[in-house]
Amino acid sequence: MSTFLAVRQVRRPQGTPSAEDFTFVTEPLPVLADGQVLVENVYLSVDPYMRQLMNTGEAGREGRAIGRVVESRSAGLPVGTTVFHRGGWTTHAAVGAADLRRVDPAGGVPLSAYLGVLGGTGLTAFVGLTRIARLRPGEDLFVSAAAGGVGSAAGQIARLMGAGRIIGSAGSAAKVAHLKEIGFDAAFNHRDGPVGEQLAQAAPRGIDVYLDNVGGDHLEAAIGALREHGRVAWCGAIAQYSSAPPAAPRNLADVMFKSLRVEGYLVREHLDAREPFERFLVPHLQNGSVRVDETVVDGFGNVVEAFLGVLRGDNTGKMLVRVS
Amino acid sequence: MSTFLAVRQVRRPQGTPSAEDFTFVTEPLPVLADGQVLVENVYLSVDPYMRQLMNTGEAGREGRAIGRVVESRSAGLPVGTTVFHRGGWTTHAAVGAADLRRVDPAGGVPLSAYLGVLGGTGLTAFVGLTRIARLRPGEDLFVSAAAGGVGSAAGQIARLMGAGRIIGSAGSAAKVAHLKEIGFDAAFNHRDGPVGEQLAQAAPRGIDVYLDNVGGDHLEAAIGALREHGRVAWCGAIAQYSSAPPAAPRNLADVMFKSLRVEGYLVREHLDAREPFERFLVPHLQNGSVRVDETVVDGFGNVVEAFLGVLRGDNTGKMLVRVS
Repeated sequence: MSTFLAVRQVRRPQGTPSAEDFTFVTEPLPVLADGQVLVENVYLSVDPYMRQLMNTGEAGREGRAIGRVVESRSAGLPVGTTVFHRGGWTTHAAVGAADLRRVDPAGGVPLSAYLGVLGGTGLTAFVGLTRIARLRPGEDLFVSAAAGGVGSAAGQIARLMGAGRIIGSAGSAAKVAHLKEIGFDAAFNHRDGPVGEQLAQAAPRGIDVYLDNVGGDHLEAAIGALREHGRVAWCGAIAQYSSAPPAAPRNLADVMFKSLRVEGYLVREHLDAREPFERFLVPHLQNGSVRVDETVVDGFGNVVEAFLGVLRGDNTGKMLVRVS
Repeated sequence: MSTFLAVRQVRRPQGTPSAEDFTFVTEPLPVLADGQVLVENVYLSVDPYMRQLMNTGEAGREGRAIGRVVESRSAGLPVGTTVFHRGGWTTHAAVGAADLRRVDPAGGVPLSAYLGVLGGTGLTAFVGLTRIARLRPGEDLFVSAAAGGVGSAAGQIARLMGAGRIIGSAGSAAKVAHLKEIGFDAAFNHRDGPVGEQLAQAAPRGIDVYLDNVGGDHLEAAIGALREHGRVAWCGAIAQYSSAPPAAPRNLADVMFKSLRVEGYLVREHLDAREPFERFLVPHLQNGSVRVDETVVDGFGNVVEAFLGVLRGDNTGKMLVRVS
């Protein structure tokens, strides 16, 4: 085989992206430079944050992927090595040794987990809870988009951290049921009524920490429910990636009145947390106390559809594409 | 004299408070219990935050005051001792030894400073810059309501901390001139045009820290100007004490996109910072590098007018009432 497939964004969407914003291209396989390897991808990550990239860069261009070395000009990376890289939505990628990381899955842990609950997705949840919100044992947590990759990981990790009550919101009754299955104490469908009212019902005594994937009305509801000295770890704003900014939380000044802390973060600035996080989580994946919660779409040809699906919330758990 | 005067709030205001919301009462001087002293007040503090109290409690009820002991049933507090207490807007107060603090003004420092730049007002600025925003040398700062007590202290303290560019906003041309006099590098009148545009012009390369006394459009402007990892220390929301919540900030999701931190705080939870703050600031007051910036209204009968004035922004620097 001397060609490979890649997805390219061909225009900037107005509002919700569509399949027409992308095209599939066939390109000749690159000639490896010294120190490079050719990776045949096994799994690709599709993530909500990529919607934001579509406005200024290109969705999927530097997306996370896991694959196997099929040709090598790097002594330490023989053919057959499994690697993580950020080569994006392609079937193959030429990657320098400095731009990849070997993946040696722990016994009993599926490879896909290293793009999901053990990858940047799980790390986003872990960093948000431990470094940003600094969740303490016994504290009550609210997670939005809780049935998504980050949210599902957050609920399960918070339980291991000794959180008190863990409350999630999601966008369907099936997802609400799913959240209860994976250990959330309470969950509600944000389409069933005002988020503020539903959260107040689920957490009548308030919350201490909010992991925000959504912004907008969810943030307003959380600010209302947060107790004094509460914290918001803000890692995503699904509610406004494709639309005009929502009205500001009308209760924003409660951040001042209640001594709250609202802090945004990017997981890529916390990659030093990856190793301790992996050490923390792997045994729990091995003994089944944490679930590898994922939705896997088969076939490289479905990468765009999988991405549009993650924006619609079609997935439960981490959304992945299995390349072949 | 066997009576004293006090101000009492007699109704909850809708919107901007007025003189009719208060009444002056004459009451018999209290009989001291063992351990108490009778304080004749010299200075009273009137503060914007008291507007908020009017909705649920009573403005001035626990306001900060400095006075002199005129009768004592506490061995350690002889007649003539100068004390700080929180007895509120009265000419006299019976205070227990545990509820007051001796004030021994440092040489060359006026007594009034202990209610202003050296009191809760200055401490609010100090805590916001050091503990909440953690301003580092060379970082650029924006302060709203900068000609008020907290703002004026913040600009001067930030200079001592080695801040880079210090920018202030205020509500009149005279105040803008005043800010430049006390060491702000740039200042603008927020009534001259959109705050976002004026701040962008004053800080074309952005800011690192925003000390927020205002909320609303000022917070939106600051979020727009903040660089990645910028911080907002939020201690007041003058813009909305008397009115409906503002629609701004529309760019709140930039907190997430730029990894900002927005943190509210109450100075009363940081009283342990008072002593180090006093040690830090007194020499600078003594050598004149920091100015005791205050507006003193004379006469207890003007206490309500002084309070309404601080809400209107009549003052430059800390607003105080000299009781007699």
